[in-house]
Amino acid sequence: MNIALLGCGTVGAAVAGLLVNEKNLILRRSNAQINLKYIFDINFDYARKKGLPESLFCNNFDIIISDKTVDTVIELVGGIDIAKTFIQKSLDSKKNVVTANKALMAQFGTELLSLARKNNTSLAFEASCGGGIPIIRALTEGLLANDIHALYGILNGTCNYILTSMTIEGKTYNQALKEARKKGYAEADPYLDVSGIDTAHKLAILAALAFGQKIDFNRIPISGINDLHELDVSYGQELGYVIKLLAIAKKQEKGLSLCTRPAFISKEHPLAWVSGPFNAVSVYGNTTGHTMYYGRGAGGRPTASAILADLYSIAINSYSKTFNSFLWPDLAPTSKQLPVEEIYTRYYMRITAKDAPGVLAKISACLGNKNISISSVLQKEPPPGTDPKFGVPVVITTHKAIEGNLRDALKEIDELDVVKDKSICIEIVEEDEEKII
Amino acid sequence: MNIALLGCGTVGAAVAGLLVNEKNLILRRSNAQINLKYIFDINFDYARKKGLPESLFCNNFDIIISDKTVDTVIELVGGIDIAKTFIQKSLDSKKNVVTANKALMAQFGTELLSLARKNNTSLAFEASCGGGIPIIRALTEGLLANDIHALYGILNGTCNYILTSMTIEGKTYNQALKEARKKGYAEADPYLDVSGIDTAHKLAILAALAFGQKIDFNRIPISGINDLHELDVSYGQELGYVIKLLAIAKKQEKGLSLCTRPAFISKEHPLAWVSGPFNAVSVYGNTTGHTMYYGRGAGGRPTASAILADLYSIAINSYSKTFNSFLWPDLAPTSKQLPVEEIYTRYYMRITAKDAPGVLAKISACLGNKNISISSVLQKEPPPGTDPKFGVPVVITTHKAIEGNLRDALKEIDELDVVKDKSICIEIVEEDEEKII
Repeated sequence: MNIALLGCGTVGAAVAGLLVNEKNLILRRSNAQINLKYIFDINFDYARKKGLPESLFCNNFDIIISDKTVDTVIELVGGIDIAKTFIQKSLDSKKNVVTANKALMAQFGTELLSLARKNNTSLAFEASCGGGIPIIRALTEGLLANDIHALYGILNGTCNYILTSMTIEGKTYNQALKEARKKGYAEADPYLDVSGIDTAHKLAILAALAFGQKIDFNRIPISGINDLHELDVSYGQELGYVIKLLAIAKKQEKGLSLCTRPAFISKEHPLAWVSGPFNAVSVYGNTTGHTMYYGRGAGGRPTASAILADLYSIAINSYSKTFNSFLWPDLAPTSKQLPVEEIYTRYYMRITAKDAPGVLAKISACLGNKNISISSVLQKEPPPGTDPKFGVPVVITTHKAIEGNLRDALKEIDELDVVKDKSICIEIVEEDEEKII
Repeated sequence: MNIALLGCGTVGAAVAGLLVNEKNLILRRSNAQINLKYIFDINFDYARKKGLPESLFCNNFDIIISDKTVDTVIELVGGIDIAKTFIQKSLDSKKNVVTANKALMAQFGTELLSLARKNNTSLAFEASCGGGIPIIRALTEGLLANDIHALYGILNGTCNYILTSMTIEGKTYNQALKEARKKGYAEADPYLDVSGIDTAHKLAILAALAFGQKIDFNRIPISGINDLHELDVSYGQELGYVIKLLAIAKKQEKGLSLCTRPAFISKEHPLAWVSGPFNAVSVYGNTTGHTMYYGRGAGGRPTASAILADLYSIAINSYSKTFNSFLWPDLAPTSKQLPVEEIYTRYYMRITAKDAPGVLAKISACLGNKNISISSVLQKEPPPGTDPKFGVPVVITTHKAIEGNLRDALKEIDELDVVKDKSICIEIVEEDEEKII
C-alpha cells in the first residue's frame, strides 16, 4: 500500500520516521506492506531537521491526488478549512483517509464519512481521540455487543496535568499552567485546551460511536478549567473527590446528556487516579459493565501509533469491513441531546455567606423550593488571609438534581442578603454506574 | 451467520441469552446478522432455568458438525480433552471457532491456530483473557505498530479480590478467601485461581501476541498467593507498594522473562488501583508508551461481551483479514524464555533475625558477595503477640539484581546462625518502564 502524508509537524514527522526508519515495526508483527511515497508540506525545515528523506518531499498536492498508486492519505494538517478540502479531494480521488483531526471530525465527521462511503473508500480516525489509546477500536469492535449508557473521558493532557498539580501540590491555576508550559505540556496559547473545547471535540466523536447517534457538537455545553479555584479543588478532596476536566456522556430517560466541564469524581473511581499528561476513557456497557482505557493522549509517537494502527487495518482490508458494517455517525439517527438544564446529576456548591444565625436556613429553603435535596453541609473557616467580613465558605453537596432547578436555586441564593459572592457549582459524577443486567 | 454454542454454563447461557433475547444489541449498532442455531450440552437444566428456547437444544455434536449451514462454533465446554476434540472437529469441518478456553489456548493454541489456518477458517479467543476487556484486539490491532517490551497483568479476579481485602482491610489470606467464597468471587475449590495457574494461562496467551513469539506454558515460573503472609502485605504498604498477583512479561537482553507471582507494585502505578474482582493489563510499547486496559475479568455477561465481539468480527469478515496477516503464535518464532534464575528485577526480603549486634553486617555480607545492592533496610518490631526470642523482622529492598544470585544469597542468609526462620522474597516491579524512543 502506497501512502502520502499531509503535514509534517510533530505527529507527521513521527509517522514518517516510523514508516521510513522503522519499517520492521509493522513487518515484524504482520505481513502488511506500507510504503510512504510522499511527505507533503509547504515548509520542510522540520522534516529535514528530523532527517526524513528529501526524495519523499512534495509541495504540490495535485501530484499526490493524481498519483493513482497512492491508496491512502494521512491528513495531519490540522485546522478546519484546508484539512477538509484535502480530505474531500482525497476521498473523491478514491483514496482512503486517515486523520488525527478531532476539530474536523467533531464538526464535519458525518459529512466526510458519508463522502468516503459514496466513493467506496474508508475514513479512519483512531488518532483523533486519546492519542495512542485504541479507544475507537474498542467502541466500534471490542464493545460492539453493549448498549453503552455512560462514557466519561479525561481527554486533554494539558488540563489533566494542570489539575493534577492543583490537586497534589495545592498550586493555583496560574501556577500550574506556568509549570505545564515550562514542561512542554501546555502550548503558548492554551485556549483550545483549557477552555474545554478540545475535550468537547473528542467527546462529540466518541459519543457518536458509543451511542450510535449523530452528535451536534455545537449543542454540547462546555466549561473549561480556567476559572477553577484552588479552594474548591481542596474542599473537594476533603469530601473524597478529585477534580478532573471530564467529557461526560450519559443516556438519560429523555435523551442524551453530554457536557465537558471540570467535575468531581470519587477517589475510588479509576479515573481519579489518572494523573499528569495521561488520558483515560471509562465506558459503561450493559454487557461488560465498566471498562477503562488508559494511555498517553498526545505527543508525536503515541499519536503515530494510532495512525499506524489505522493504516494497518486499511492495508489488510479489515477496516473496510468495519466501515461497511458498523453504525458510523453518517448512518446513525440524530440524537436527542438534552440542554444543560436537563442534566440530572449530583452537585457540589460553595456559597460565600455571612457568618450569622439563620443563614443555612435561608440557603436550604432556596434549595428545598426547587426540590433539591442536600446530601452534606460543611461550613469552613474563611480561607487564610481573608477577612471574615467577606463571608465564610459554606460547602453543600446535593443528591441527584435537575441542573435547571439547581441553577434557579443558585440564582435565588446569590440574591440573598446573607450571601456575599457569586456561588460556585461543580458537578459530582456518580460513583457506580455499572448496569450489567 | 449461523452459529452453534457448545456448553451452556454461566458464560454459555449469557451468550445464548444475548443472541436470543437481545438480538437488537448487535443489530442496533451494525448490520451483522448472527443467528444461534444450536445450544449443545449434555444437560439442559441450567439452560431451561435461564429460559432458553428448547428448540435450540441439541445433545448430538455430530448433528452440528454435519450441518453445513453452521459457520461458526463457540466452544465453552472448558477443560482440555473434550474441548480440544470439539474444536478440532469443528475446524476440520471448515467452521470458525470462538473460544474462551484459556487453559487450552495456553497449552495447545499453536496447534489449534495452525489447524484453523490449514482449514482456511479462523480461531478467535478474545474471551480467554481479561473477560470483557478487549485486550487481544488491542495487542493484535490497536498496538500493532509497537515493539512491546513489557506487559503486566492482573488477570484473576479471585486473587485480586483476596489481595485487595488483605491490603485494605488487613485480613489474613484465609479470612480473605473465606469472604471471597461468601461473595461468589471464589469457587469451592479455588486451586486454579490462587495457585497462579489461571493467571499463567492468560500470560502465555497474551505474551505470545505481544511479543510475536511462541510461548512454552510449561516453562513459565508460577507462584500463587496461598503462602502470602499479611505481614508482608502491610510492610510493603509502608514502603509504598501494593501487592498484586501479576502476570509479568519482559524483554530482557538475553530473552523473554515471564512469570506469574505475587509482586509489589508502586502505589503510583495504575495497576495498584485495580481493586476487587477487576482485571487490568498494562502494556509498554516503544511507540505509544504505557497503555492500560481495565474491566471485569470474569462473569457470564462480561465474558459473553468478548465472545460476541469475536462473532461480530467473524460475521463481517474482518477477523479473517487479521487472522491472515498478524503474526499469530503458530507463525511466530519460538521464544527464548529465560529460566527464573535469570529474571532481573528488584526484590523485597523479610528476614527473621536475632535482635543482636552484627546481624545486619552478616546479612549484607551475603548479599554483597552475590553482587546484590541494598536499596533500603527497615528493622521492624516483632509482630504483635510473638516472643522476640523468635527473632525480629528485617525488611530489605534491593536494587535490580539477578534472581539466581538473590536465591543463592538467601540460601546463605537462611543458614546464618542469627537467622531464625525461612526468609521471604517478593519481586518489586519497577515503576517506570516507558521507553518511547
